Amino acid sequence: MAITLYELAAGDPAIRFSPFCWRTRFALAHKGLDVETVPWHFTETEKLAFTGQTRVPVIVDQGTVVADSWAIADYLERVYPDRPSLFGGERARAHAAFINGWADLVVNPGISRLIVTDILAAQRPEDQHHFRHSREKAFGASLEDVVAGREERVETWRLSLAPVRWVLRRHPWLGGESPDYADYILLGSLQWPRCISRFALLEADDPVRAWQERGLALFDGLGAAAKTV
Amino acid sequence: MAITLYELAAGDPAIRFSPFCWRTRFALAHKGLDVETVPWHFTETEKLAFTGQTRVPVIVDQGTVVADSWAIADYLERVYPDRPSLFGGERARAHAAFINGWADLVVNPGISRLIVTDILAAQRPEDQHHFRHSREKAFGASLEDVVAGREERVETWRLSLAPVRWVLRRHPWLGGESPDYADYILLGSLQWPRCISRFALLEADDPVRAWQERGLALFDGLGAAAKTV
Repeated sequence: MAITLYELAAGDPAIRFSPFCWRTRFALAHKGLDVETVPWHFTETEKLAFTGQTRVPVIVDQGTVVADSWAIADYLERVYPDRPSLFGGERARAHAAFINGWADLVVNPGISRLIVTDILAAQRPEDQHHFRHSREKAFGASLEDVVAGREERVETWRLSLAPVRWVLRRHPWLGGESPDYADYILLGSLQWPRCISRFALLEADDPVRAWQERGLALFDGLGAAAKTV
Repeated sequence: MAITLYELAAGDPAIRFSPFCWRTRFALAHKGLDVETVPWHFTETEKLAFTGQTRVPVIVDQGTVVADSWAIADYLERVYPDRPSLFGGERARAHAAFINGWADLVVNPGISRLIVTDILAAQRPEDQHHFRHSREKAFGASLEDVVAGREERVETWRLSLAPVRWVLRRHPWLGGESPDYADYILLGSLQWPRCISRFALLEADDPVRAWQERGLALFDGLGAAAKTV
């Protein structure tokens, strides 16, 4: 039986743009597990009520509900040990946790400040008020002020990826010789702007861009096939 | 036969303050390998000439010369596979490479801008000119200008450790349930200001501080026993 994944959707429900949901999509593909996705919009609280959650990703696996992308990766690794490993051992999982924390606390906040108006524009009218209100409260500024000057600020964001380039000078993947969850964390972060915005975050000759292309081609082009705005 | 480690020394040669040499010290201790350290000062080029290197750490292991802390860790893991693993597998090593790149490109440059005048002050008179000249050229500013306002700027540096705190909410060590090379990377970074400066980088209630204390106690207090200015 396929695992159900509640996945953040835009106004066009075919556009799935959550960095966290993408981590889970890649993790499920890595494990070779079937998935049925259910589109979920920001204000559809009732749709998730049975899970006790207010945010996605949430998976339901034969009645077991698991929320939060890191907890889901942990769950999949534990419950499907005979499938290809997402981490490659306990130490590798702890090290990947560092990369997860870095993506959540450095990469993603930086992306948000570059594309948050694009995210707003792609939502259903009935979700836009909620999105603007909650984000402007968190930023303490209008979304338009938050993205102002992004053409210059994107340079600083690119510099934040320096540790990735350090690894890519030594290995083709963050997981070493083949991709693993460390790669899916950052691929997920980059699917977010790729799907919901036309603002180019990476320069064409950035090694991170070449790595992203390899990642988009994985699993029969799962990432590459994603619908974009 | 003990491994020889050429190790950066201050004007007081008992003070060993290089973040990279400390990584190697911890790695050798983790492997349970005997070490004989040779103090090396910034301008002692002739002392390293036989290795073809101009910087430390450099180890000599029964005639084999290995330079660069990451290459040394790789070497020790490969040549001493029966000793406790520094990484815990190939994937864990690739993930640790990310942490190494992050420490080199984010943590260490930040520390340098907080303590570089303290480093200068602790060198031998004959090394001070070289140190000031090469660092001021790299910074494009006087060392005094570089450290100006450090009491305020240290807050920003502390924020850069957020991914570490993310891991420490889940595990006691960056390596998971026990310390590994991922821990030694950052412990090494923190030995640098700890040994060469009296400027306090971490707040007393920072979880990173508690983790550092645990790390300093490893190997019979190897890190804690280090001589400081």
